[in-house]
Amino acid sequence: MDKYIIVGLGVFGRSLAKNLIQKGTEVIVIDKEMDLVEEVRDIVTYAVCMDSTDEKALDALGLRDVDVGIVCIGEDFEANLLTSVLLKHKGVKKVISRASDPLHIKIFKAVGIHQIVTPGVEAAEKLAYSLVHKSLLDISYISETTAAAKISVPPSFAGKTLGKLNLRARFGINVVAIHRMIETVGKDGPVLQEKVISNIPGADTVIDASDILVVIGETDNLDKVMKSL
Amino acid sequence: MDKYIIVGLGVFGRSLAKNLIQKGTEVIVIDKEMDLVEEVRDIVTYAVCMDSTDEKALDALGLRDVDVGIVCIGEDFEANLLTSVLLKHKGVKKVISRASDPLHIKIFKAVGIHQIVTPGVEAAEKLAYSLVHKSLLDISYISETTAAAKISVPPSFAGKTLGKLNLRARFGINVVAIHRMIETVGKDGPVLQEKVISNIPGADTVIDASDILVVIGETDNLDKVMKSL
Repeated sequence: MDKYIIVGLGVFGRSLAKNLIQKGTEVIVIDKEMDLVEEVRDIVTYAVCMDSTDEKALDALGLRDVDVGIVCIGEDFEANLLTSVLLKHKGVKKVISRASDPLHIKIFKAVGIHQIVTPGVEAAEKLAYSLVHKSLLDISYISETTAAAKISVPPSFAGKTLGKLNLRARFGINVVAIHRMIETVGKDGPVLQEKVISNIPGADTVIDASDILVVIGETDNLDKVMKSL
Repeated sequence: MDKYIIVGLGVFGRSLAKNLIQKGTEVIVIDKEMDLVEEVRDIVTYAVCMDSTDEKALDALGLRDVDVGIVCIGEDFEANLLTSVLLKHKGVKKVISRASDPLHIKIFKAVGIHQIVTPGVEAAEKLAYSLVHKSLLDISYISETTAAAKISVPPSFAGKTLGKLNLRARFGINVVAIHRMIETVGKDGPVLQEKVISNIPGADTVIDASDILVVIGETDNLDKVMKSL
């Protein structure tokens, strides 16, 4: 298993540390706030309270054994950049940095950071998209231009087969799954539960008015569908 | 178009404001840091520097007209909770709050917050998953248990048809798209470009060793596939 070092224990860094530990990996964490270090000390392999931009302190950690370093410092870009470059120069095999705007991404790329993550930016895009498209229940980007979306069924689709609706030819999107709310009886009475009734449904599958469709397509085409609903 | 109010101009709040404005909506932003307010003043409908937990100051904004309030305050949970509850009581029709851990989610639900977003937590889950599964290039969750993943083709798949590989029966996953790297000649010589060669490929589609497969399935099944690669 790979060895990881995580710098910065904000929400993103803490969650990442917990997730990696759960998957059975070795995780060293660094933060300059003692409170944050104490909070995760018992669950990680090794927790250090230090300034990650201090080159000598970093040397003492023996970074040559570390496979992946993830710099999760959020608002202080200078500290993030300095730490990222130091990890790279000290021999960490892969350095991933958290960026918050397009200029930071350009700078990270210019100094040779291997991978850049933008948690806040991505989540904001997704939320804005789902807020303005009311029939959209959720959207996940598969690439910059392709996405999977969960949409509620528009009234005009109800009772028709996928073959008749012909969404692929009309909108360039594919229905890859149908979720249906099913009423089941639990110990406290009937409960509504979402159930996948079909993965990759066929042309003869009939859509129900209360179904949720999982569709895949280019975001432009998804936009068109949602505007027409 | 709906009217939005965004409280907290960190990375997530700023990105959200920009995205909503781009989609042609009316956006009011609030932060207690003047620098952050100034940064977005020219692009939003109305920018206010104030403490969002100050009930009288909030009253002066006329919140009854606002359709959606999104509280993006990151690390200060108390300020986030107070603001969220105030927006709800002042007549904002839908209140969305940013949460950073499971306990916060429970509290937001208990006070009747309509929607909860967890940008850092979701991004961390996704990154941890892709770090431990090397053949996984990207993953997008469609629901809690279903995801779309981009995976590189394992050597054993190359040259075979999808029909022969029979991934649906063997692993319970469906290949919904195939991306292939294509070499094109630009003005500076040959460039590798990713191109979608097939959406919903058929049983007779032959997989190339350098293809990228977009697959959909339950996360447990995706785990199994990736472990077997």
